[in-house]
Parts: sequence; C-alpha cells; structure tokens
Amino acid sequence: MKKEKLILVTNDDGITSKGITVLQKVMQKFGKVVVIAPDSAMSGMGHAITINQPLRLFKDNHFNNGVESYSCSGTPVDCVKLGIYEILDGVPDLIVSGINHGSNAATNVLYSGTMSAAVEGAMENISSIGFSLCSYDPDANFDHAVEIVEKVVANVLDEGIGEGVCLNVNIPDVQNLKGLKVCRQAHAFWEDFFEKRMDPHNRPYYWLTGDFVEQTPAEDTDLFWLEKGYATVVPTQFDLTAYKVMTKLKQWEL
Amino acid sequence: MKKEKLILVTNDDGITSKGITVLQKVMQKFGKVVVIAPDSAMSGMGHAITINQPLRLFKDNHFNNGVESYSCSGTPVDCVKLGIYEILDGVPDLIVSGINHGSNAATNVLYSGTMSAAVEGAMENISSIGFSLCSYDPDANFDHAVEIVEKVVANVLDEGIGEGVCLNVNIPDVQNLKGLKVCRQAHAFWEDFFEKRMDPHNRPYYWLTGDFVEQTPAEDTDLFWLEKGYATVVPTQFDLTAYKVMTKLKQWEL
Repeated sequence: MKKEKLILVTNDDGITSKGITVLQKVMQKFGKVVVIAPDSAMSGMGHAITINQPLRLFKDNHFNNGVESYSCSGTPVDCVKLGIYEILDGVPDLIVSGINHGSNAATNVLYSGTMSAAVEGAMENISSIGFSLCSYDPDANFDHAVEIVEKVVANVLDEGIGEGVCLNVNIPDVQNLKGLKVCRQAHAFWEDFFEKRMDPHNRPYYWLTGDFVEQTPAEDTDLFWLEKGYATVVPTQFDLTAYKVMTKLKQWEL
Repeated sequence: MKKEKLILVTNDDGITSKGITVLQKVMQKFGKVVVIAPDSAMSGMGHAITINQPLRLFKDNHFNNGVESYSCSGTPVDCVKLGIYEILDGVPDLIVSGINHGSNAATNVLYSGTMSAAVEGAMENISSIGFSLCSYDPDANFDHAVEIVEKVVANVLDEGIGEGVCLNVNIPDVQNLKGLKVCRQAHAFWEDFFEKRMDPHNRPYYWLTGDFVEQTPAEDTDLFWLEKGYATVVPTQFDLTAYKVMTKLKQWEL
C-alpha cells in the first residue's frame, strides 16, 4: 500500500484569505494536509526570513474541517522552514503555496512571498508549486484555478519536476480558460511611483505604488500566454548564475 | 569632457554599519555618490518591498563628509526604488550595495537584502554590484575588500556587465588574498534549527538559527574559491526560468 502523501500548504496573503482556504480543501484529495501560513498579509516579502525578531506560531482550527493548521507571525519562507524543521512529522512530499490573490507572472516572481515559499521548497529538494490567480479581488472566483491546481499537482506527484526547480503557475481571471502553457518568465518590470504625503506633524511619508509596464510581451513568455487566456507554468530555479556572461567576465580574473 | 558618474550606494546592515561607511568613501573616487540605506538592520530581507506600510525617508549628514545621504525605514530594494524614482537627479550609472558584514555566497544570495538591491538594479538595467566580506565582525577589517571593490568597479564602469545581470562579489576574511575568480553560485544550503523558548507568560516563541551545510563545494563555485582564499564574482540574473526542464514539462500542456 502506498504511503499517504504529506503536503505543506502556505501562502503570502495570510491564513484568513480565500485563496488558501480553497487550496487546502482541494489538496485534501491528494494526501494529508498541514497548513502553516502567515497570520497577516505578507505580500511583497520576497525571500525574506525573520532573523532579528523571534517568531510566533500558534496551532488553530482555522478551517473548521479538521485540517491541522498553524498561523505564524513570520514570512512565507519562515513558514516553510518551520514546517520542515519544527512542525511536520518528516519531510513533506509536496509544498503548495497560494492560491495567490494577484498575478506572480514575469518579474513579480522575485517580489512574491508566495513564490519564494516554493523556491525555498526547491532549495530543500522538495517538489514545490506556487499558484496565483490574476485577480486581486478578496472574493475572487477560484473555480478555474482549482481545475489547474488539480491537473498540475497530479502531474508533479506522478512525474516530479526536476532537482532544484519549482513551478510558478498563474491562472488568468477569465470565464473560458483556453488551456495551459509551459513557458518562460517575461522580462517586464514595474515603473514605480512614490506618493508623498505629509503626516499630521508635517513630516513626509511615502507610499510605494506603480504601473506594470505593458510592453508587448515576447512570445513564449508567461505574460504573452496569460493575455491570450491560458494558464501558465514557468519552471523556476534558485540558481541565479548568469552563465551567458561568464566567459566575458573571466577576463577580469586576478 | 566626460560627465561625472552618478553612483547610488545602499546596503542591508543599515546606514550606521562600518561596511557602508567604507564603501561610500571608496566610491567617491569614481563619481558623485548618494547614499540611501536602511535606518536599521535589514539582513535576510531578500527581495522584500514595503507595500502594506508607508515609508519614511530622511536626509541626514550621516558620514560628516558632505556626501548626500538618506536613511530609510524600508528594505534595501525600497531604497533602490526610492533612489531611482524619487531622490536621484536622473538614472544612476552604477548601484553598489554593501560592503556586507558576512558572506552572500552560494544560496545566501536569495536571502540577502544586499544582493537583492543589486538584482533590483539589474531589473532597471543599471550596472549593479553587491559586495560582501566573509566576516560578521561589526568592526571587521575591510582593507582587502576595498582593493577588490576598486578593481571590480573600474572594470564595470569601463566594460559594463550585460543586460539583466548584476554581480555578487564576496571577499574572504584572510590576511593574504590570493586573487579574484569569476565562478558560479554554489548549491549549498542552510540546515535550519528553531530554538523554542517560553515567554514570561508561558507562550512559546522561536528563534531561527541554523548551520550552513559544509558539503565539499563543487569546483568552479563561489564557496570552492572562497575557501581557497580567493575573492569571487558570480554574475547574477533575475530570470529564474529553469530552461533545462522546459521540454519535459511541455508534455503537460493542455
């Protein structure tokens, strides 16, 4: 008899978000689920870890369905580390993160706490997937997203991903999903804007905001296919070495 | 007559650290320096940005040498964004981050605020370099590091790096530096350990700690050469796509 799979679920929108509520439910079809997620919104935390403060972690029954769940004061990467090294009974077979409220396509992967949790899983050599729906609506409809989650998870559990690689899965917020494409990360970026305001004591503060630059996305990128109504899968690695410039730079060696 | 270079200096140890004090001084040989750095320690913040809180930013004369400097409540990536989009008069020619107190070799690049500032620069298509000394001593000796900074900066200003690529430069804390090697990121990782303590109200809290796993580092990696007494330069990119597994995954397309 096959051993039941152990699945760690996390996110960056926090344990109270609709996206993780949907995700923990669908994951129960695939094995024993444990949820460890931030107790508040941790969007934009990237690969941050908490080293200058202690972490709080409390067991709760948040989902009222018997699923073991913990809320944590730390970042998504902290949640993954706590899962592997403190909470779980053994190394998980799978880490899933999300379902994020909002796209993590293109260079958003670098800012995303959701995706950094998956990258941390890959560093630990655990099959890991980040899921994002391209809608910031807190009450978004996740029906199409669930179909994609089931398809991708089934494939990953059957065939694995590859050493040091996780998946960045984005699902467009459309009525008729056209399919799923494996593609590369688009190189679009944010044109930032800081809104400067004065506090009641006449001292300035700044809100970070910005526009995602809508260049025509190159073919075979996640942005290209999302705009056409496809879900996208970008295999994502933690080796940041830019091998293509190595030869040129070697001339500098001392 | 050549226009003076505009250089943005930041770090993740905070504006009061010795490493950035040394770095802003040496960078004055290369152009006009503006420092925008966190007002407190931001180690381990990775590519985090501040979106759920406003940012504070105050001009000061921290270095008492006429260098324009700002301390910021945000992360290193926030500092780079504020520099480019709010403070600087034009796009900088160069962003340098550090000198970090502690190694950012191997997979540490992902957790490092110092390196994420450089990666953010690369995303904006600005030549960017993160410098780290392999010593956590707050009063470390940066003499060898300064030699490497001067060498690498001179090369970057002369020849550039490559589109979408920044540099991760680590300098061993040794008496006799053997040279400088261009190499790839080692795939070592942290074996984490959480120290569980009880607060005075008998509720648990956790400190993240851990050991960097000292496998024999593969040849041509940063860890390999650092252990042999060389400074290392890893060209570092923000495209995380794992092209090597693309063909296999394309079988999943719907």
